[in-house]
Amino acid sequence: MAEPRREITAECLCIGDELLIGQTLNTNAAWMGEQLGLIGIRPVLTRVVGDHPDRILEALRTSTADVVLMTGGLGPTKDDITKHMLCTFFGTRLVRRPEVEARIVELFTRMGRAPGDVMEVNRAQADLPEDCTVVPNLRGTASGMWFERAGRVFVSMPGVPYEMTGMMVRDVLPMLRDRFEPPVIVHRTVLTTGLGESQLAERIAGWEDALAADGIKLAYLPSPGLVKLRLSAYANADGTAARAQVDRRVQALYGLIPELIYGEGEERLEQVIGRLLKAKGQTLTLAESCTGGFLSHLVTSIPGSSAYYIGGVVSYANAVKMEELGIPSDMLELNGAVSQPVVERMASGVREALKSDWAIATSGVAGPDGGTPDKPVGTVWLAVAGPDGVRSSKGVFMGTRDLIIQRSATAGLNMLRKRLLSG
Amino acid sequence: MAEPRREITAECLCIGDELLIGQTLNTNAAWMGEQLGLIGIRPVLTRVVGDHPDRILEALRTSTADVVLMTGGLGPTKDDITKHMLCTFFGTRLVRRPEVEARIVELFTRMGRAPGDVMEVNRAQADLPEDCTVVPNLRGTASGMWFERAGRVFVSMPGVPYEMTGMMVRDVLPMLRDRFEPPVIVHRTVLTTGLGESQLAERIAGWEDALAADGIKLAYLPSPGLVKLRLSAYANADGTAARAQVDRRVQALYGLIPELIYGEGEERLEQVIGRLLKAKGQTLTLAESCTGGFLSHLVTSIPGSSAYYIGGVVSYANAVKMEELGIPSDMLELNGAVSQPVVERMASGVREALKSDWAIATSGVAGPDGGTPDKPVGTVWLAVAGPDGVRSSKGVFMGTRDLIIQRSATAGLNMLRKRLLSG
Repeated sequence: MAEPRREITAECLCIGDELLIGQTLNTNAAWMGEQLGLIGIRPVLTRVVGDHPDRILEALRTSTADVVLMTGGLGPTKDDITKHMLCTFFGTRLVRRPEVEARIVELFTRMGRAPGDVMEVNRAQADLPEDCTVVPNLRGTASGMWFERAGRVFVSMPGVPYEMTGMMVRDVLPMLRDRFEPPVIVHRTVLTTGLGESQLAERIAGWEDALAADGIKLAYLPSPGLVKLRLSAYANADGTAARAQVDRRVQALYGLIPELIYGEGEERLEQVIGRLLKAKGQTLTLAESCTGGFLSHLVTSIPGSSAYYIGGVVSYANAVKMEELGIPSDMLELNGAVSQPVVERMASGVREALKSDWAIATSGVAGPDGGTPDKPVGTVWLAVAGPDGVRSSKGVFMGTRDLIIQRSATAGLNMLRKRLLSG
Repeated sequence: MAEPRREITAECLCIGDELLIGQTLNTNAAWMGEQLGLIGIRPVLTRVVGDHPDRILEALRTSTADVVLMTGGLGPTKDDITKHMLCTFFGTRLVRRPEVEARIVELFTRMGRAPGDVMEVNRAQADLPEDCTVVPNLRGTASGMWFERAGRVFVSMPGVPYEMTGMMVRDVLPMLRDRFEPPVIVHRTVLTTGLGESQLAERIAGWEDALAADGIKLAYLPSPGLVKLRLSAYANADGTAARAQVDRRVQALYGLIPELIYGEGEERLEQVIGRLLKAKGQTLTLAESCTGGFLSHLVTSIPGSSAYYIGGVVSYANAVKMEELGIPSDMLELNGAVSQPVVERMASGVREALKSDWAIATSGVAGPDGGTPDKPVGTVWLAVAGPDGVRSSKGVFMGTRDLIIQRSATAGLNMLRKRLLSG
């Protein structure tokens, strides 16, 4: 492995009382830390301070990292003071930027406001420090600010995650890469589902041990129902040798656990399903009981899903299971709603009623109430109906109501994925 | 307002590379911040540093808060170095605590290990700094450590949330209260929907300005479709005067923006809907197009929602709108799916088909594609059908596909809330 150049360090400085008092979870710092790592900059410190002049100034004065990424305190209200503190710290003053003001007015008129009705408090968001580089915000009214001092970079961005991430991806990350030319890191992320973290680690232990010889690091990134495996290695000048080594190891992993890998990179299981269905020109419907619409939400969160998703029925009450999905009342009485015959009938029922090639059905006990000794909370029946018939399986998922819903949905999507691949 | 005693400040110092690189979300800091606030200790700083000696020592040396709550780095492996750094910082040394070792051995034997088989690496977790007070861990093997120096308190706890929270609730929070007798803070959070942050601020500017006279602080906490307003004030000895002042100001706010307030505290809009429906003994169904099941997911994320939620139809394809919801094909052809007549018919259609008192329907362009000059991305028609007929309204929402879906769902729930209250 090529020896990396001097390490570039970064601090995330997040401003906002809501973060300190636990009203808002600091997802920004986690996301920024991950993105910095991906371009070879090392996050060494995260600080959260309140919307308080002395605290913000003290944090700026005691920062030492090469890169300081700030979020928060850029809103139009009185408690948003970040840009004033930046002026104090850098010894500069606010000036109104006409091009930024024009964009703000345009944003408001697009939402139906007359230009004359755009309030001064909103226009004042175009008042920005005189010697900063403005980082455009295409998703809101608070601009980003880029400062350079003594070889170090300070970037101030809004605290709204959607606005901050847009700004980072479009401008800040490329600008940081140009400015510091950090050592290139080669990454590849393999997405798995079907085994928990420790079982997966046991299964691939031999493969994992051999990675060190190539200078490849492995990270396990678990989330409900999934484990991502990220391989990373410092690249030589052109990156090709490290890339080839990582690729070779990933190839070996495909040989080792083919049934557990569903994709790579940032791809989501519902995207994989969409890709497979589109390739086959086939369609999907859903019949949801315990997942309550969450499975449908996952499928429709993918842009363009209307090409293969017909629709679904959330059959919370038994009456809906009977009338919309054609489940006989004696089947419900005999087996209960959380049962193999019912879930299979739900899948074939919705497939016939809404006319699709494939259908997924879920029926289970999401809790916290409703469990029995026979069917404890977390018991979930899943079925997939398709051109070659209906198949089902039972899972018992751990965790809160939210987690049981998420894990059921993931398991249902994965059942369909396997059917689509085997067919 | 009674003059508060000197404010007691706190810092959360979280140790762990996994937090810096974004592998783990820092839920510990958020939870500790909230708990500290509730006992009247003010969190002023959160820091996250890696498992690195210099970084940990530097953080300890530069800390200034009265209380420093540390998490992480207490495990049995080599990269867990927190207690060694605490010894360096406090000039003390590790000594084995026999009572702690006995508890560790007992924990392992309870899990089926023979006492003789408990490894030295695990027993070594009973090596703790000589002059700390041990905080027992009933949920794991890593003990907490409580130090006092020059009137300040340092507490080191494990990073596993389940272990940390157990320790905090059972011992650390009561010990902090005894040690500092912090001033009580009175909070009340009012939940609003219908206006964005800046429009809301403009609307209540006069009310906001008057809060200072009572020593009440106001925070705006926006999230997609909602703005929370949190009032807080220091209490006098018994808390009643400050409580009364906060209550009086909240009462005035209800008079000022009655139509925008949907609840208080941690309540979610879908909980409010559930509460109102249960009180009336009425039921709900949903017909979703652009929200694609997300509205149904919100409703069913509330435990016990099966008491009032019958079910729903996700009518993504027009065929489902026609066959399941009875929308005439010429109505779809004439107006398009994203239109007032169609969304009203969806609401009454699902209300009749699934037999409920109320129904919400959504039809819009969630994007990123599918917008037209006439109906740009973000155009959403919403309808609520009820015993007294169907009403509808159009919104144009900003943001990504996800945000448009979230904002549409919030707006739909809020329409129903108003109907339930006016009926």
